[in-house]
Amino acid sequence: MTVDAQISAYLEQALCTGKADNCPPKLKSALQHAVFPGGARVRPKLCLAVASACEPGVDLSDALAAAAALELLHCASLVHDDLPCFDDADQRRGKASVHIRYGEPIAVLAGDAMIVLAFQTLALKAPTYFRELTLVMADATAPPNGICAGQAWESEAEIDLEAYHNSKTAALFVAATRAGAVSVGASDAGWRPLGEYLGQAYQLADDLRDAVLSPEDLGKPAKQDTRNCRPSAVESYGVSGTYQRLRGAIEAAADSVPLCAGTESLRQLIHAQAVRLTPEHLVQDVA
Amino acid sequence: MTVDAQISAYLEQALCTGKADNCPPKLKSALQHAVFPGGARVRPKLCLAVASACEPGVDLSDALAAAAALELLHCASLVHDDLPCFDDADQRRGKASVHIRYGEPIAVLAGDAMIVLAFQTLALKAPTYFRELTLVMADATAPPNGICAGQAWESEAEIDLEAYHNSKTAALFVAATRAGAVSVGASDAGWRPLGEYLGQAYQLADDLRDAVLSPEDLGKPAKQDTRNCRPSAVESYGVSGTYQRLRGAIEAAADSVPLCAGTESLRQLIHAQAVRLTPEHLVQDVA
Repeated sequence: MTVDAQISAYLEQALCTGKADNCPPKLKSALQHAVFPGGARVRPKLCLAVASACEPGVDLSDALAAAAALELLHCASLVHDDLPCFDDADQRRGKASVHIRYGEPIAVLAGDAMIVLAFQTLALKAPTYFRELTLVMADATAPPNGICAGQAWESEAEIDLEAYHNSKTAALFVAATRAGAVSVGASDAGWRPLGEYLGQAYQLADDLRDAVLSPEDLGKPAKQDTRNCRPSAVESYGVSGTYQRLRGAIEAAADSVPLCAGTESLRQLIHAQAVRLTPEHLVQDVA
Repeated sequence: MTVDAQISAYLEQALCTGKADNCPPKLKSALQHAVFPGGARVRPKLCLAVASACEPGVDLSDALAAAAALELLHCASLVHDDLPCFDDADQRRGKASVHIRYGEPIAVLAGDAMIVLAFQTLALKAPTYFRELTLVMADATAPPNGICAGQAWESEAEIDLEAYHNSKTAALFVAATRAGAVSVGASDAGWRPLGEYLGQAYQLADDLRDAVLSPEDLGKPAKQDTRNCRPSAVESYGVSGTYQRLRGAIEAAADSVPLCAGTESLRQLIHAQAVRLTPEHLVQDVA
């Protein structure tokens, strides 16, 4: 089974937890809509890649549970971020956002439900490192440093920019690298920088794409940062400057991989991801 | 230390998890506003009462963690229920609701954060039955039977009334009785009916209070069920009929208490709660 198929299987099981099918139909459908078909599943794949790098060939049950939890938390944040009171985005991944398709109440509830399902999945599917993985996921989502706090900076008159970016985007990448190590019994101590650099790279790539791509290519409304008066790297550094910083963050990420059995293959994976992250014509434009 | 003080101490610790104080100020303040001062803390007290009834004199660390988690999940549901897309309630517990005071984005995020903090609290503070308690809390909140699903029935054209009431109100009461037993190593098998009857009683009492009390006495807008076209027991059975059903649910609750060391004292507690639940002048009106 491919990694994608394994992640999907865990997500499918998380959404219908094996009980009698008496879920309100719209909520059930909204959960499917929010999770399938997914984006690139970057965070769960990162988690699994770190787990395999730490302990090649080891049982990945805990890592797969963590991978599914990461994706559920990510999808929850996307559904809530798209709400009218935040980004007011009518599209996501090339289709209607959840509140457009199912209404705002169902969108709020679907996000809430996915947060709970993330922790339920860990309790049901992570046989060994359940407590440790729960704490990693909670760090990445709760205040003071998780994605809830990151989003909340947008409601402040004065934004702590570093805290904003670290908690809004990097937090779930840090959770992915930490969880990967923790889920195979390795120490997560050295893995935080990789998550932070990849989070930075992803934020920079997202700012770039938001600034230069069309809504068709993005699968969601373009120029959302500008429209929502949010701090964007392109505004501060320009397209070329942002691209240089993206390259720098990718290099730093690759260099930060701790020494372990799979250091080299993980570095190669990071460079491959970097190409995927950057719009092709952009690379030509600034090259 | 009183039970109230113990619950408050656990909740205080959950809201500022001992880390550097770099939480966005509005989110931090909104979390305090949502949790303190509390309502009657009915669910956490029920959990602790069941734990003590099962195993008098036993260490209550796991039960207190569960109690705090229950209250955080309850407060999260209140903050989200008050949002404009649900009840659009401008008051709660006699003061401005969270979205009125801090804005809608912070209200959404505060609810999300409290859900995560509930599971984090279990991971940090429940030394023994962490996994079991996590599953109890997830059952009570996630689809298909938790409060997210209960609320979602309101978006359906045809409401499954039994599923609606069971999941919207009874679910957290069932979680309270189950968690009480589980947290001291007892079986939760016999404790579900007590939670269900108390949940019913609470829903009936709430419908009664909503129909007959003023906003000042309620501490929130009155006649919300009618205004939001929601099914209400008073609409179906009248004030007197609803009151009779409330009495019946309380009796059934007291009768359902499984045989354990503290059966008698728990029954007395339930009857005492029943008096508190019913508005005094109403008892006189229908007596």
